Amino acid sequence: MLKNFQELKKLVLKRPKKIVAVSCANDWHTLEAVFKAHEDGLLDYILVGDENKIREIAHEHGIDNFSGSVINCTDEKESAEITVRLVRDGKADFLQKGLMQTKTILKAVLNKEYGIPTGNLMSNVALLEIPGYHKIVGVTDGGMIMYPTYEQKEGMIKNAVRMFNYMGYDKPKVAAICALEIVNPKMPETVDAANLKAACERGELGECYVEGPISTDIAFKKEAAEIKGFDSPVAGDADIVLVPNISAGNMMVKGMLLFGGAKMAGVVMGAKCPIALNSRSATFEEKYYALVACCLISDIIK
Amino acid sequence: MLKNFQELKKLVLKRPKKIVAVSCANDWHTLEAVFKAHEDGLLDYILVGDENKIREIAHEHGIDNFSGSVINCTDEKESAEITVRLVRDGKADFLQKGLMQTKTILKAVLNKEYGIPTGNLMSNVALLEIPGYHKIVGVTDGGMIMYPTYEQKEGMIKNAVRMFNYMGYDKPKVAAICALEIVNPKMPETVDAANLKAACERGELGECYVEGPISTDIAFKKEAAEIKGFDSPVAGDADIVLVPNISAGNMMVKGMLLFGGAKMAGVVMGAKCPIALNSRSATFEEKYYALVACCLISDIIK
Repeated sequence: MLKNFQELKKLVLKRPKKIVAVSCANDWHTLEAVFKAHEDGLLDYILVGDENKIREIAHEHGIDNFSGSVINCTDEKESAEITVRLVRDGKADFLQKGLMQTKTILKAVLNKEYGIPTGNLMSNVALLEIPGYHKIVGVTDGGMIMYPTYEQKEGMIKNAVRMFNYMGYDKPKVAAICALEIVNPKMPETVDAANLKAACERGELGECYVEGPISTDIAFKKEAAEIKGFDSPVAGDADIVLVPNISAGNMMVKGMLLFGGAKMAGVVMGAKCPIALNSRSATFEEKYYALVACCLISDIIK
Repeated sequence: MLKNFQELKKLVLKRPKKIVAVSCANDWHTLEAVFKAHEDGLLDYILVGDENKIREIAHEHGIDNFSGSVINCTDEKESAEITVRLVRDGKADFLQKGLMQTKTILKAVLNKEYGIPTGNLMSNVALLEIPGYHKIVGVTDGGMIMYPTYEQKEGMIKNAVRMFNYMGYDKPKVAAICALEIVNPKMPETVDAANLKAACERGELGECYVEGPISTDIAFKKEAAEIKGFDSPVAGDADIVLVPNISAGNMMVKGMLLFGGAKMAGVVMGAKCPIALNSRSATFEEKYYALVACCLISDIIK
């Protein structure tokens, strides 16, 4: 069990150093996160992007020399292709999205000629450190998949479980949360949640426990489970939360960031390497922790 | 602008005292909230339910005499009917749901013979006091309407706006939040949000400002709006938040209650009086604040 991002970082330091390829690195928060992660001994890096701008931005922040290499490229699409090729050729372990559109990097990752697809679904996992919760929790998917089908939910669980297995969890606890903890045929997500639980019991979703439908309060709080008479190993102890749609995940995560003092690391799973992917307005800290998380899980596929 | 529930309470004390009719009052948290609100001078009450059980529960908590009247009734459906008739006959100002199913009280409210419908949509508004936000915010609807249509969203906004108008707001600010702040035709809620904004500008949604689509961070935080270049009177200052579906509202609200130190008052709007309606596992405090809120808005329709 990982209590917080500090513990995650300690785990990274015990493993071989990774190399990140940064696409469109001409953004200060992105550079700041990469430089700090390098300084902390977590990773080496290759910056891809407009070299003049990169050096200018670094200079503005008092940094005139840095150890990582820079590949000059002023085109967004080309920058994505270069970073993806670096991973495919074994010169980098994972990707980070810089100042660019998400769809550009995802298209490059899935490219048939030079891409790094696995055939699995690509999905977003937001790792959260929440002061009121006793451990890190992964929320999937508040960022990429809008209205997941049942099959996509299976893929989302598999991706998140693989991530947590790699973080040292033998059997992560997955809560397929809904607005209520009872199957209601008028609410398809409750039916899906019950079916996902059954699929997990048949061993179809990898090494994990899935509980569902389960409400948010029961997933996070044992007392709520006791009051409602809900008995499950997942109750009050969820590692992974599967949300029924992008709005639910997005609003829950943002609520926790805005008002719960939570910290986030956004990672895209499903390709041959993880992608550190945050919104363009993300803080330095969010970008840093996304790098830390990716260092830990970037040799899943190899 | 009401900063918190204490301010809401002060406002109630300035207005004529209200009478609540409690359906299935045989529940300690419900009684506790009613007794406390009475003691605080906010309301008088009529308890409907199993009289023996009500007196027994009160006795167990050291209360053997109370001023309010009790109407003995051991049947859930009948209890709902009696409370609704009390409001229709002008003997009570609003309803509180006790230990019973939500659908039973809603059916009684909508009954064609003795009910108190208005022809408007019935919807849930969760008033929240969040330590990190500068004022009370209403979230609609994380409790009743599962997948609202565009027309239902109009009704939800009108109900919440009417509530805030009555709380002293001339033009409450409504954020039609989505996972992103741009219209994406593949995401119908973003299209709805833009159309709701336009409907508001045409004066079709009552006295309010509607902004949408708008992301959660922009709705609650001015800094986020500035970074993203989003200019709107609603940015960072939302009074009412319209969520695209029940899961989104439910998970956002529960996240804030669990990890943001928020307090909630659940109210159902749309009938001739408001209904104080919380989940059966709600705390005393939630039930108390729902009563306070209803005292303030219970002569909307009369």
